[in-house]
Amino acid sequence: MAKNIIVGQSGGPTSVINSSLAGVFKIAKELGADKIYGMRNGIEGLLNEQYIDMTDYIKNDMDVEILKRTPSAFLGSCRFKLPTVEKSPETYDKIIAILRKMDIQHFFYIGGNDSMDTIKQLSTYAKDKNITDITFMGVPKTIDNDLAVTDHTPGYGSAAKYIGATLKEIIRDALVQPINIVTIVEIMGRNAGWLAAAAALAKGDDCEGVDLIYLPELAFDIDKFLTKIEEISKTKKQIVVAVSEGIKDANGTYICEAAAQGELMVDSFGHKALSGTATALSRLVANKFGCKTRPIEFSTIQRCASHIGSLTDVNEAFLIGGQAVKAAFDGETGKVGIYNRISNKPYLMNTSIYDVNAIANVEKTVPKEWIINDGTYLSQEAIDYMKPLIQGEALPYMVDGLPRHIKL
Amino acid sequence: MAKNIIVGQSGGPTSVINSSLAGVFKIAKELGADKIYGMRNGIEGLLNEQYIDMTDYIKNDMDVEILKRTPSAFLGSCRFKLPTVEKSPETYDKIIAILRKMDIQHFFYIGGNDSMDTIKQLSTYAKDKNITDITFMGVPKTIDNDLAVTDHTPGYGSAAKYIGATLKEIIRDALVQPINIVTIVEIMGRNAGWLAAAAALAKGDDCEGVDLIYLPELAFDIDKFLTKIEEISKTKKQIVVAVSEGIKDANGTYICEAAAQGELMVDSFGHKALSGTATALSRLVANKFGCKTRPIEFSTIQRCASHIGSLTDVNEAFLIGGQAVKAAFDGETGKVGIYNRISNKPYLMNTSIYDVNAIANVEKTVPKEWIINDGTYLSQEAIDYMKPLIQGEALPYMVDGLPRHIKL
Repeated sequence: MAKNIIVGQSGGPTSVINSSLAGVFKIAKELGADKIYGMRNGIEGLLNEQYIDMTDYIKNDMDVEILKRTPSAFLGSCRFKLPTVEKSPETYDKIIAILRKMDIQHFFYIGGNDSMDTIKQLSTYAKDKNITDITFMGVPKTIDNDLAVTDHTPGYGSAAKYIGATLKEIIRDALVQPINIVTIVEIMGRNAGWLAAAAALAKGDDCEGVDLIYLPELAFDIDKFLTKIEEISKTKKQIVVAVSEGIKDANGTYICEAAAQGELMVDSFGHKALSGTATALSRLVANKFGCKTRPIEFSTIQRCASHIGSLTDVNEAFLIGGQAVKAAFDGETGKVGIYNRISNKPYLMNTSIYDVNAIANVEKTVPKEWIINDGTYLSQEAIDYMKPLIQGEALPYMVDGLPRHIKL
Repeated sequence: MAKNIIVGQSGGPTSVINSSLAGVFKIAKELGADKIYGMRNGIEGLLNEQYIDMTDYIKNDMDVEILKRTPSAFLGSCRFKLPTVEKSPETYDKIIAILRKMDIQHFFYIGGNDSMDTIKQLSTYAKDKNITDITFMGVPKTIDNDLAVTDHTPGYGSAAKYIGATLKEIIRDALVQPINIVTIVEIMGRNAGWLAAAAALAKGDDCEGVDLIYLPELAFDIDKFLTKIEEISKTKKQIVVAVSEGIKDANGTYICEAAAQGELMVDSFGHKALSGTATALSRLVANKFGCKTRPIEFSTIQRCASHIGSLTDVNEAFLIGGQAVKAAFDGETGKVGIYNRISNKPYLMNTSIYDVNAIANVEKTVPKEWIINDGTYLSQEAIDYMKPLIQGEALPYMVDGLPRHIKL
């Protein structure tokens, strides 16, 4: 009997979502899959019957290795959230019809919270309709590290490594001039501060580290922040601060918005123009202390900097893709691959699968007890948790001076 | 006779200014220098007699190698421009007195335009005063690649490699969602567009490249820019633009300022608040076309990203440091180390020294004939010029998942 599979990628890019795709592809081939289809732009593309035969593009093991080292989503992504079955049963009928037409037995979706909801909806629908010829399996992905149950998420380790490495470089740069300067680095994370927490990794024998780290898990107090800056400036000319883009004040207002109240920025249409969080804080510091400030945003670079990918992350992402295929071929459905940490020192982990209902739409934040120094730094426990995830380098194949990628 | 030297670093950091420092240190040692002093924070520190004995910190060849791979200025930097001899002869007397007290025979200064002016002033003063016991030698440095005479500058190749590599990643990221989006990447360069020109390196078999590149060498026309975006958007959903921070309109007004005229941003004090160039252009595009836009600033990251340093650049920077020492020990003064390109294909170069008067305070910009496509892209000649400079990887020593640096 033919064993066709289809795989899609969804949500924001990471450095290793393609490594999971490579894992799905390679293990599916090894386990005897016939056709391995890839959805173009996730479920949104599938609904328009846009897909490729992956073997047309990934022709050999060299291609698999380049795919593992190519950032962003090879198949394209989407931000399409499936309507509920109650609202749009025809959407589900259509998906099942397309999958049956393609003779698909196993459906894989690589993504974050919203994507796991897609697996949840589809597997629940299949169960309710007694559809047993197609399984639905999730593969986790997000730099945000905010998925429940799994110890960490594919993509987080590489982003954390980029943040740690780049902050070490920024700190060397920031300390170079004998002047008072406050550098504020804005790191992704609207509700969970896992990425900004990685700023703590910069500190070591050969680096002073950042002075303050602010996560969205705790309310941000502008006055307390300015007081901290004033205190540190008594002993240190150059100050480096890391902040999550999503920090909010006690009322739940984003700081980039709250900071704008004092000096309302309006354009000629009268619209309030919001700057980024680092820019807003830099302006506050400059106004208060009259010193030089420098806002830096890691922007999308932090999620796609596969040129400094974590080997641990790349390999684990590959493994979890393969784990999902193995489980599906063994008959599982409505599950997600997860990482289980056995120990920190030595770092030991394994993968397994878990009920998607426990993972979809749940957001995991940084434990509050890991945030120390009056909400301005991370504990040793947090560092011990992060450290193993950035180990090893998944260096790109460099061709003519630049990383080699693969694209459709 | 004792042969003591002193070396300083000045101006903005680069990925390889420490590689030149390592070259000065290592070759001076090999040529029999006794004491090798390092000025703390350049000439500004020297005037306060702040210096170190470099052998206290660089103890072996492993330290030399780590120094070569450490970004920013190991000795600290300054932005201090020497007053002219006419204005402040006592400054010059003081410097000579300090150098004589330290029994210095050779003075080296690693830096850009302003730093070469320091060498010019000091060597001219020494000549005029018939001071023959101290030589003054410049070592070029600047990511901006805007120094005259030399084929290129140490630091440019690594910054160009970072820009090419990161843009490849940003392009993969930018193309992932099936939506209309204009990504605008701001690259350093106030008057010379060499760094933004490196955006052209991203294009290749495996990358679509950026769609438009704007350099400060040509006047920027906002209306023409918007028309270009409109044209490209007819065939392409996702557009990526690279701009020099220093682009100006036909009146010489910086675009970040000119763009603000239409929608004047004022703070509560009535100050006009200027955003960055990418942010200003993003706002213009969003207002005009109603599409999603994403401004990205490479910021200081581009000048200190030694984790993806060019091996060619690191090695050449080391070489030019050594060249300066050799020349000084041979009795030269008032000169600067320069690169001479013998050919592009194969890339062949050598180093020599040149009269500092021809280099100090002169700014070299991108040849206008290299800027093609109605001022929106770079010619093959430009790419052939840049390509050799990004070859090879000077990978950092990775320790516990992060690059190892050396610091005072």
